[in-house]
Amino acid sequence: MKITKLTLVGAGPGDEELITLKGVRALQSADVVLYDALANKSLLDFVPEGVPCLFVGKRSGEHSMKQEEINELIVSSAFTYGHVVRLKGGDPVVFGRAFEEMEYAEAFGIACELVPGVSSCIAVPSSIGIPVTRRGISDSFWVITGHTQSGGVPADIYLAAQSSATVVVLMGLARLKEIAEVFAGAGKDELPVAVIQNGTKEDARFVVGQVKDIAEKVGEVQIKRPSVIVFGEVVGIHPEYIALYSEKLLNEEILV
Amino acid sequence: MKITKLTLVGAGPGDEELITLKGVRALQSADVVLYDALANKSLLDFVPEGVPCLFVGKRSGEHSMKQEEINELIVSSAFTYGHVVRLKGGDPVVFGRAFEEMEYAEAFGIACELVPGVSSCIAVPSSIGIPVTRRGISDSFWVITGHTQSGGVPADIYLAAQSSATVVVLMGLARLKEIAEVFAGAGKDELPVAVIQNGTKEDARFVVGQVKDIAEKVGEVQIKRPSVIVFGEVVGIHPEYIALYSEKLLNEEILV
Repeated sequence: MKITKLTLVGAGPGDEELITLKGVRALQSADVVLYDALANKSLLDFVPEGVPCLFVGKRSGEHSMKQEEINELIVSSAFTYGHVVRLKGGDPVVFGRAFEEMEYAEAFGIACELVPGVSSCIAVPSSIGIPVTRRGISDSFWVITGHTQSGGVPADIYLAAQSSATVVVLMGLARLKEIAEVFAGAGKDELPVAVIQNGTKEDARFVVGQVKDIAEKVGEVQIKRPSVIVFGEVVGIHPEYIALYSEKLLNEEILV
Repeated sequence: MKITKLTLVGAGPGDEELITLKGVRALQSADVVLYDALANKSLLDFVPEGVPCLFVGKRSGEHSMKQEEINELIVSSAFTYGHVVRLKGGDPVVFGRAFEEMEYAEAFGIACELVPGVSSCIAVPSSIGIPVTRRGISDSFWVITGHTQSGGVPADIYLAAQSSATVVVLMGLARLKEIAEVFAGAGKDELPVAVIQNGTKEDARFVVGQVKDIAEKVGEVQIKRPSVIVFGEVVGIHPEYIALYSEKLLNEEILV
């Protein structure tokens, strides 16, 4: 009888070298791999030859497979093949429904292990020079999904807009305009914002702006998903931001 | 002339297999390593023989080396040895002063690279079965340092206590009682809390409780630093929490 096992592996933010050693070892011992849209496909090179790798990706807006179907596929794959590696972009628990998959599998007596990954929420901003925390500027960061079940702006955004935290929004590009309006409503028209597409990958692109103009700028340069949005004063120390808004900053200094 | 370079590497949360491939490759190409207290020492096995590895750790409460001294040591090490790898626990930008070190080095013409790591703020809770986000329970998480320059409770805690976010406090053990009082003051006496010491390592220990009793419980079982504190309903689905508070939960159900 095969030993059934499920290992959820965080693939990291995009750069294939940002997977962990433990993640690589899981892939090397896989009997089948079920992978998401966000994982870097070259990570599948670690999987031994002949081991099936199945795409079960969900992308915001184009659900190719329902969560229930993925859960069932995990269980049937475990009984057919043995060790199932479930490769998910970033870290599996950050909006990744990792525990739902594990609980479903455990109910069938399948042993489960979780291998964390480098999360996009921290690594993508830092890859372009924006630290989520910085002494004297931001002592905390708040990570929020822009993709709510109700379809509206996430409730936490309203409180986040009042906080001094760096606010990182994942899966929020489709709702950027409405989210920025919440920050504007909290009197933060000029709060620096960055939107980064394909962060940590070779084809990474980003745009910096302020709450009042970021949605327009993203439209102009056609930043697409997957993207990470960062609201906060930590964006204000980025050289590109300083270059763009320095005239304004100088004027403010004169006024002070 | 030597090629001077600084690579900041996230060592991950404790388990030595949770370093990234990129981090391992940096260690393998190091001419000198400057490492922190929180990094797992066995990671130094990746460093080629004969390459000096210097401890420059800072621990909350016992500053063995000032940040300015570390900055200077980075620069002098780069000019003496060449490639400096700065190994920091978790992810270098999460309260890690990574950009301060890079900016200081860059001012001396030293090229800098940042290799992100698996952050304790996500991986430590998930290692004991607590996901920082969970559909239907928590759509966001807020990461806050308990170690403020002023020495008081961080200002963000007051707003965080009002939010529905999972609140993760790093370096907050010494201030746990005061932080819990802020949550209690926001009417969250019974909010589930977990405190995890040495998360992801073999000697990991944790305690679960509620806002009203967590400080006492931590004292009873003598949880020590380094610890990660998690406030939020996601703690409430942990089997140990359910076992401890199930009588209460049952009573509530009867009342409903």
